[in-house]
Amino acid sequence: MPARSLPSQPSVAIVGATGAVGVELLGCLEQRAFPVSRLRLLASARSAGKTMTFRGQPVTVEELTPDSFAGVDLALFSAGSGLSKSHAPLAVQAGAVVVDNSSAFRMAPEVPLVVPEVNAAAMEGHGGIIANPNCVAAIATVALAPLHRAAPIRRLSLATYQAASGAGAAAMEELRLATAAALRGEDYPPQVLPHPYAFNFFSHNAAMDPETGYNGEETKVVAETRRILDLPDLPVGITCIRVPILRAHGMAISVAFDAPVDVEAARALLAAAPGVKLVDDRAANHFPMPSEASGQYDVLVGRLRPDWADPSGRTLAMFVVGDQLLKGAALNAVQIAEALLPRQG
Amino acid sequence: MPARSLPSQPSVAIVGATGAVGVELLGCLEQRAFPVSRLRLLASARSAGKTMTFRGQPVTVEELTPDSFAGVDLALFSAGSGLSKSHAPLAVQAGAVVVDNSSAFRMAPEVPLVVPEVNAAAMEGHGGIIANPNCVAAIATVALAPLHRAAPIRRLSLATYQAASGAGAAAMEELRLATAAALRGEDYPPQVLPHPYAFNFFSHNAAMDPETGYNGEETKVVAETRRILDLPDLPVGITCIRVPILRAHGMAISVAFDAPVDVEAARALLAAAPGVKLVDDRAANHFPMPSEASGQYDVLVGRLRPDWADPSGRTLAMFVVGDQLLKGAALNAVQIAEALLPRQG
Repeated sequence: MPARSLPSQPSVAIVGATGAVGVELLGCLEQRAFPVSRLRLLASARSAGKTMTFRGQPVTVEELTPDSFAGVDLALFSAGSGLSKSHAPLAVQAGAVVVDNSSAFRMAPEVPLVVPEVNAAAMEGHGGIIANPNCVAAIATVALAPLHRAAPIRRLSLATYQAASGAGAAAMEELRLATAAALRGEDYPPQVLPHPYAFNFFSHNAAMDPETGYNGEETKVVAETRRILDLPDLPVGITCIRVPILRAHGMAISVAFDAPVDVEAARALLAAAPGVKLVDDRAANHFPMPSEASGQYDVLVGRLRPDWADPSGRTLAMFVVGDQLLKGAALNAVQIAEALLPRQG
Repeated sequence: MPARSLPSQPSVAIVGATGAVGVELLGCLEQRAFPVSRLRLLASARSAGKTMTFRGQPVTVEELTPDSFAGVDLALFSAGSGLSKSHAPLAVQAGAVVVDNSSAFRMAPEVPLVVPEVNAAAMEGHGGIIANPNCVAAIATVALAPLHRAAPIRRLSLATYQAASGAGAAAMEELRLATAAALRGEDYPPQVLPHPYAFNFFSHNAAMDPETGYNGEETKVVAETRRILDLPDLPVGITCIRVPILRAHGMAISVAFDAPVDVEAARALLAAAPGVKLVDDRAANHFPMPSEASGQYDVLVGRLRPDWADPSGRTLAMFVVGDQLLKGAALNAVQIAEALLPRQG
């Protein structure tokens, strides 16, 4: 069966339009001049009736129902795993291609899990749903794929510095409110996240597997990174930490190869890689950081050096920061949709 | 030559009394009922004349001069490497034992570098100066030593989450001011640290070696961890990141051994280790974090699990958080001084 592609001027629906990612989906469609013929903004009953702006025009948010997808060519889902499971199949039945930002279908064998710079070919033959990866996996693989193409990756370690936005707009607001309270010397009981967030970091709040000692965020990153890089047995060690940052994720990465690492060659590969901006200025002590990654499409990569933990010299260390709401979510989804548009003659 | 020890009621001087660490040195001496017979608070001319409180009594800060150490038995230095180099020998000449919090003497072969829980025996035969380690090295080795005693450590990796306090009281204030400005939507040009600090993290600001790609903080941690653990050839990989936290450092640690790791046994060793508090509650998703480590003497250790990056099972992953100003600085210095007091009959 040939995969369903998009018409040149698709009718687009955003499911979860008022959420942190929904707002960025709208922004990416506009900024990237995605050829939207008609736009529907879908959300819960609570948000229905709100007005958002697209290309200078007001668009009223509608309540998501099973019938919302009539006439929709492209449905961008970002409303949580439960809603994706219940409503994405309805959208496909109604004729839409779904790009799903939840974890609902990411490990389903018939659903491609795609970072366009890395594995765009996996989209071929899709069955109507394409999954958008976990934010850490998306950002990490953009930096890893150019290296892996040159020399196969044998082992991977990550320690993350993750922003509030991964837990949604309410967590971003909690960070602001809790921090303001702390600066006033007041307590702020956590409501969205399980621990105090003002000037604090903590192990990622995803459910912890009591047997393995790894949390759900960590197991997602491991499984999805393996799938995106097509390295099903890659050993991946990971520690996910939530830090008091608004919307950019960082990660200290160590990546092992079969042969000693040539840092200059790695730097050249990354400098030429799509979606990567090399920020690796040792003289100026200038490396990737959220203040420069936030709002940017590119993933910032720097601090390239041999990892001293591996005396054989086969391990490269680097530090990567990417906007969680953009490359970690909305941008990647819109890039997937762009790849489904008919090629310009 | 028998090492100089302290009288039972030493006369104590704090050099750098008004700094972030100086304030904590004063607090530790008081809270731990260190038997101070007489206290001198020494600082720069700018701070001289200020009043600080010790055991309910006001103590006037004096300007540090070459003659400040007459009659002083114990001089606790925390005023930067330059002042330690110039004035610590004067204090020793005047008859004092110096515990130095700077990096000035940490790698000098004749100067012991000490974390009392780890290598108290190294103090024997000291020549008048004992060095207090870098904060990350002190906190990390408290967690590593109990494991290393049971089975030798073969490799170590750290990714740090470091607080403002490591750069002094002015950096802590910059974090507060920059964050308050950001919450008001205003810019705050960085003055103390080289990058914006509000809701931002960045590669540690210590000078970067353009050849190796490692910064001065990282090379200190590597060299000092090896020296404290008496493992001169230990391979140590490290990434030091400054996060917007006031006074507790975190670190994701992977530590490799010769044989497969028994997580339960490691947990039992750490639960019984001096200076360690095990915070490793998988069911409650409760692990070490700055909000619980700040102001605490103990180093919090948790997230114990096999590191999935090592399929042989020989690598243990853990997450460690300790108060940078206490175990990372003032507490450790006062513990060294306590070890120099005559033993109680």
